[in-house]
Amino acid sequence: MRAEPFSTVIEKSGNRIARDIEVLSGPEYTTSSEAIRRYAYTGAYERTLSYFDAELRKVGFEVVRDPVGNLVARNRPPGEPVFGIGSHCDSNRNGGRFDGTLGVVAALELCRLNAERGLGLPIQLISWLEEEGSGFGELMLGSRIAAGLVTQRDLDAMRALDDGMSFMEQARAAGFEPERWRDSRHVLDDLAGWIEIHIEQGRVLQDAGIPIGLVTAITGYIHADLVITGRADHAGGTPMTGRIDAGVIAAETVLAVERLTQVAGDGTVGTVGQLVFEPGLRNVIPGRATVALDIRSVDQGQLTSVVESTIELARSSAAARGAAVEVVEHQRQPPTQMDADLVVALEACAKRLDVPTLRMASGAAHDTVFVAERVPSAMVFVPCKDGISHSPAEDARPADAALAVEVALGSIRDRLRASESLS
Amino acid sequence: MRAEPFSTVIEKSGNRIARDIEVLSGPEYTTSSEAIRRYAYTGAYERTLSYFDAELRKVGFEVVRDPVGNLVARNRPPGEPVFGIGSHCDSNRNGGRFDGTLGVVAALELCRLNAERGLGLPIQLISWLEEEGSGFGELMLGSRIAAGLVTQRDLDAMRALDDGMSFMEQARAAGFEPERWRDSRHVLDDLAGWIEIHIEQGRVLQDAGIPIGLVTAITGYIHADLVITGRADHAGGTPMTGRIDAGVIAAETVLAVERLTQVAGDGTVGTVGQLVFEPGLRNVIPGRATVALDIRSVDQGQLTSVVESTIELARSSAAARGAAVEVVEHQRQPPTQMDADLVVALEACAKRLDVPTLRMASGAAHDTVFVAERVPSAMVFVPCKDGISHSPAEDARPADAALAVEVALGSIRDRLRASESLS
Repeated sequence: MRAEPFSTVIEKSGNRIARDIEVLSGPEYTTSSEAIRRYAYTGAYERTLSYFDAELRKVGFEVVRDPVGNLVARNRPPGEPVFGIGSHCDSNRNGGRFDGTLGVVAALELCRLNAERGLGLPIQLISWLEEEGSGFGELMLGSRIAAGLVTQRDLDAMRALDDGMSFMEQARAAGFEPERWRDSRHVLDDLAGWIEIHIEQGRVLQDAGIPIGLVTAITGYIHADLVITGRADHAGGTPMTGRIDAGVIAAETVLAVERLTQVAGDGTVGTVGQLVFEPGLRNVIPGRATVALDIRSVDQGQLTSVVESTIELARSSAAARGAAVEVVEHQRQPPTQMDADLVVALEACAKRLDVPTLRMASGAAHDTVFVAERVPSAMVFVPCKDGISHSPAEDARPADAALAVEVALGSIRDRLRASESLS
Repeated sequence: MRAEPFSTVIEKSGNRIARDIEVLSGPEYTTSSEAIRRYAYTGAYERTLSYFDAELRKVGFEVVRDPVGNLVARNRPPGEPVFGIGSHCDSNRNGGRFDGTLGVVAALELCRLNAERGLGLPIQLISWLEEEGSGFGELMLGSRIAAGLVTQRDLDAMRALDDGMSFMEQARAAGFEPERWRDSRHVLDDLAGWIEIHIEQGRVLQDAGIPIGLVTAITGYIHADLVITGRADHAGGTPMTGRIDAGVIAAETVLAVERLTQVAGDGTVGTVGQLVFEPGLRNVIPGRATVALDIRSVDQGQLTSVVESTIELARSSAAARGAAVEVVEHQRQPPTQMDADLVVALEACAKRLDVPTLRMASGAAHDTVFVAERVPSAMVFVPCKDGISHSPAEDARPADAALAVEVALGSIRDRLRASESLS
């Protein structure tokens, strides 16, 4: 067995991963006929977790759900140190087969290999609840609860997008004990480390032709709206000199975002994905324009500096034209550095296996942001076709995920051996 | 009577105009409780025309409806030359009391003064059908039919916005003979000239503190959409260098429109009042952006040059980023010059009455564009508060309209006397 060529190992592992993904793309596992759509407490979601539950039991894991519904599977009793691996298997409402789910499937494959090869590594697999926020409009809910970053008031205010039922009520109806949500923190208690495997959601790996990305940091982000108030006038009756055109100021702001992020460099990115003109008629000068900012950086200084400079430029463009700018901040998340030693361990293991890797930042946020609050953490990216995610068109190669599993498994073994030899 | 001071004359006339406007703002004359909303063949619209019908009969006019429903009132039998005056009394769907209606009310007041003062001038008042297009989505429908600028096919294709019923069917149901629409051209047959009084729909007169605008030309316009196709990618996972951001190209286009129209000068104006990003999510780079262009000028050369340069700049910005631009032209209307002699006559009359005037372009289109195809035409603008139109907040001073009536009446008298003395 041990003498099998690496390519055969990867092929077999890739086939199992492909089969898992195929199964979980079936009609039982989504509430939509056109996309993967599964989220907390729906039948499709519970059946997905049951699939993992059954597969994990086959390789000797005990599987439980925490008080809010995070799935936790261990091959050691509570209290003993374990290495964490996992992701989420909920999707956005018009999602694909890979975002999140591939990471849980890869984690399952890692548990299978650990058993098959008799490695006996102590592992805890976690599938986090509601990463995509499709159920209650709250991103990364399960990991935030485990990290203690929500309050009772937050949970009380949370309502299901479908029917407005409260989170507390719906979790109870699904058989959980949401009033005990504070106990979800114990999910992280015994973790010696954490690795999340995920599709990249960008084109960097595809363009570079490299199968494995090693995340060194998850970018922080600021989401804010700039609401520019000008004056709506008739497009025909108002000379160019007498205008207070909120749309022109918005256009200057869009270009400022691009310029400022390019100057900032270091992987800092800035996007205006939404821009709304009001009243929004061809023959009326925009009286109001709302610019949706999404600025991200792995450097906290760059992050706040780009946002502040954007606001300053918008205000000065507005002032020059007699308009006003109001800033409505929606979310602010600082950058999260991955554990440097763990990244080095992953890199060393990949090198040993002759698997090319690329160090990179994660531009998207992940549950690992919150796990990293308490546990040395890292992420392993695999390419996804054309960078597409959050769409039924998502695609990724199971063989790349199999490589990620080997790299993760190897580095977990190295880490645990190193800590044993130290203790 | 003749010895009354001019200010008293204007006050009395202004009061009658104010009363007409007040009556026509009542609940019988609009289908909305929050705005003036009246359009072809509704009860509110027919009652409005009945009001004019009754008032005009009191001063010796014969009132008819042409085959499609334009109201035509004359104090001379068909075949005799008459001077035309009027506007439209339909509104947009969320309209005010003044746009259009003030012009018909002013025309009615002119007919009253003609009778009261025993001037005996031959007058034909027209209230054009569907200037605002609220009924069938077609602007200036009545005047375009009279000018022979629609086809049977156009009319057959026209559907009511409310219930999808065809124009032909609805006009018939309202008691008209739309199959005889070609006879509407006779409405213009006997006109020796045409004056339309209208609110300015801009702030130029208000800002200048001048009560009367004399329109020298109605701007031509081009309405087109630039559809920019880039590539929708994840806002976090896509570095700034790998992007094809349709939104940034759109922003450059918005600024190009402003710059190009400012350079063009001569009252050329350009507006982007609608800008739609797709998919329109904060965390997705716009894959598509649609820029709604509204370019206007009294100079045909400037008009086409600004549009062509805008398209060229958009295409070059797109090409530099790997995106594409498609141009979808919706409407194109060349500039319309007003009759120079008639403008001089209006100006001379205003000067005699000591009423300040300002020569200006009309940035908005009006029925007069189509009347001018066959008849020497002019327009007289009165200020409207803050340039607001197409809104329940529309406001204008009846006394300014009374001044416009005096200027129009005086110049009509001068013109008709001049032509009599010539013949």
